[in-house]
Amino acid sequence: MSRSIMDIAAQVQGPDKTASKAAAAYLDSLTKPPGSLGKLETLAVKLAGITGEIKPSFPGRGVVVMAADHGVCEEGISAFPAEVTPQMVHNFLSGGAAVNVLSRQAGAEVMCVDVGVNAELRHPGLISRKVRYGTANMAKGPAMSREEAEAAILAGIEVVEEAVARGIKCFVTGEMGIGNTTASAAIMSALTGISSLETVGRGTGINDERLRQKVLIVERALETNRPDASDAVDVLAKVGGLEIAGLTGVILGAAANRCPVILDGFISGAAALAAVRIAPDSIHYMIASHVSQEQGHVYLLKELGLEPMLYLDMRLGEGTGGVLALHLIDAACRIMAEMATFESAGVSSGTDGTKPAGKAHS
Amino acid sequence: MSRSIMDIAAQVQGPDKTASKAAAAYLDSLTKPPGSLGKLETLAVKLAGITGEIKPSFPGRGVVVMAADHGVCEEGISAFPAEVTPQMVHNFLSGGAAVNVLSRQAGAEVMCVDVGVNAELRHPGLISRKVRYGTANMAKGPAMSREEAEAAILAGIEVVEEAVARGIKCFVTGEMGIGNTTASAAIMSALTGISSLETVGRGTGINDERLRQKVLIVERALETNRPDASDAVDVLAKVGGLEIAGLTGVILGAAANRCPVILDGFISGAAALAAVRIAPDSIHYMIASHVSQEQGHVYLLKELGLEPMLYLDMRLGEGTGGVLALHLIDAACRIMAEMATFESAGVSSGTDGTKPAGKAHS
Repeated sequence: MSRSIMDIAAQVQGPDKTASKAAAAYLDSLTKPPGSLGKLETLAVKLAGITGEIKPSFPGRGVVVMAADHGVCEEGISAFPAEVTPQMVHNFLSGGAAVNVLSRQAGAEVMCVDVGVNAELRHPGLISRKVRYGTANMAKGPAMSREEAEAAILAGIEVVEEAVARGIKCFVTGEMGIGNTTASAAIMSALTGISSLETVGRGTGINDERLRQKVLIVERALETNRPDASDAVDVLAKVGGLEIAGLTGVILGAAANRCPVILDGFISGAAALAAVRIAPDSIHYMIASHVSQEQGHVYLLKELGLEPMLYLDMRLGEGTGGVLALHLIDAACRIMAEMATFESAGVSSGTDGTKPAGKAHS
Repeated sequence: MSRSIMDIAAQVQGPDKTASKAAAAYLDSLTKPPGSLGKLETLAVKLAGITGEIKPSFPGRGVVVMAADHGVCEEGISAFPAEVTPQMVHNFLSGGAAVNVLSRQAGAEVMCVDVGVNAELRHPGLISRKVRYGTANMAKGPAMSREEAEAAILAGIEVVEEAVARGIKCFVTGEMGIGNTTASAAIMSALTGISSLETVGRGTGINDERLRQKVLIVERALETNRPDASDAVDVLAKVGGLEIAGLTGVILGAAANRCPVILDGFISGAAALAAVRIAPDSIHYMIASHVSQEQGHVYLLKELGLEPMLYLDMRLGEGTGGVLALHLIDAACRIMAEMATFESAGVSSGTDGTKPAGKAHS
């Protein structure tokens, strides 16, 4: 691991337990039965642990959409041609993709990063951090070198650092890269030992024949490259993707800067798993948004120990599910900032030995 | 059934199938794999069927919080004293409750309706539609008369009609009433035949002893009153609640005016079940928001054939889960209004015999 990534990993610290305890106590003083706001309360406590503030808010927020191509596409594992990657990057830059629409709704900035698209891209809105023109075919050898994986991780870290300097304090992970559920399944299998039969899914919607091929290709990639399960950078280099390594950097950068980072779907989850292996305390900064239709995602979230909030059967990626969850972050913050307490509202207590509570259903 | 409720029920018509088909076709022209936005796409199609518009929007939206008391509270089925109902009504009117906070976030108006609180309430912001001072104890006899149940339903219809006249075209159901999960469980058991062991839950958080008592009380209420399962108004009168009947009216009123109505939790679901029995086509106007911790809610949503979008382990009521789902309604509307098409963005098609699609994961 390069010195720089180690430095960032060392900066990642555990949550502020004093603040999270104070937030939990404050929640119980609000006019509602204790715990009755469910995961919004868990979120409020977590945000306090991340920021050190009981009543935080996140006016500056951004989704980092890392884009790159995958050499493994030549094995016919995707329903869509690789040319869609640069086409969709242009769509992001023009503001017409789903992630743009939902980011406008959420007041979030879309940061589109070319970390490895296999095309020349030029646009004033593009963040150019190209490490190489797509990965090599992992079914035949390493997807990239260790140095390239590290460069992609650093690109993610630096995009976050630049954004933090501009006032963005809450991040969403997003991505674009035809072939990237194949790489994510390989990363997940390599890091957890879970069979490719469970980590490989239908991505954008491949048929049964391609699904069988995809499972075989993931197995071949793992056999060919034998990534070291105890070394997440090795795994990202050998069977990963440039945009996935970039997202690992985004997550590490957010955690090192004590910013919450909302995970989108399966690809983001694979990046998160690598981040946790590099800096275990980074888990405290991660927030799960939705559970996608990609079959491996449920297992991935269990492995991370995170519970999703949105069940929308989405399978689009880009950061779309993550951006939708910004609304729930805001809801948790507003609950802390605006709700009345039992004392201020003059509401009576419960009678079951529970703490005071102010709601209707019995 | 009174003439007026029958009139409203007769006004409830099926969805505009031409509009919903056009919406589905338009969704497939947008730059994403077909169906990849999951329930947001289902929602967009449903909203088109409700409104007749492919690109609707709902700037005027409101949550109707129906408040009332329950005579059955004297049986000790709640963790909280009945005095909390009027106290929380004051909290709603002061803007300090969770539903107020989340409604401000959603840009929704809170309409607080006294349809049967067992206290004198006066406040310029209160909508006074009191039918009686709380129900009678349903364990000993009917909760209310048929005429009172009809008056409560009509109150809900009229609150919606007045709001529609002011430009509110999207509704959320909310409620407040200590004891109302007990009445909702009884309604659900009466209308579906599902055992009270499954419909009764812990409400605001009762202990095991009270839970056993609550099951017994629901069984006794059903035996004592023998509500007619084929007559939802009879069920609402004998084992229901004034706020629950009021919400049945809100749902019928919204459906008759071709407005979407977002259901909150278990109590709203019981009201919805009654609405479907009175006007079967009203189901097309209902949108499920979250699944609550109250155990009967999952069964209730299955019975209604609706799928929730938010899994937040909430059990607060008031309309809080419903108001959070307004964000998803807005997201579905924005997708229809703002996303680029394949043609406009110049994005290539898939290769698996799927329709054109423009996303990354394979």
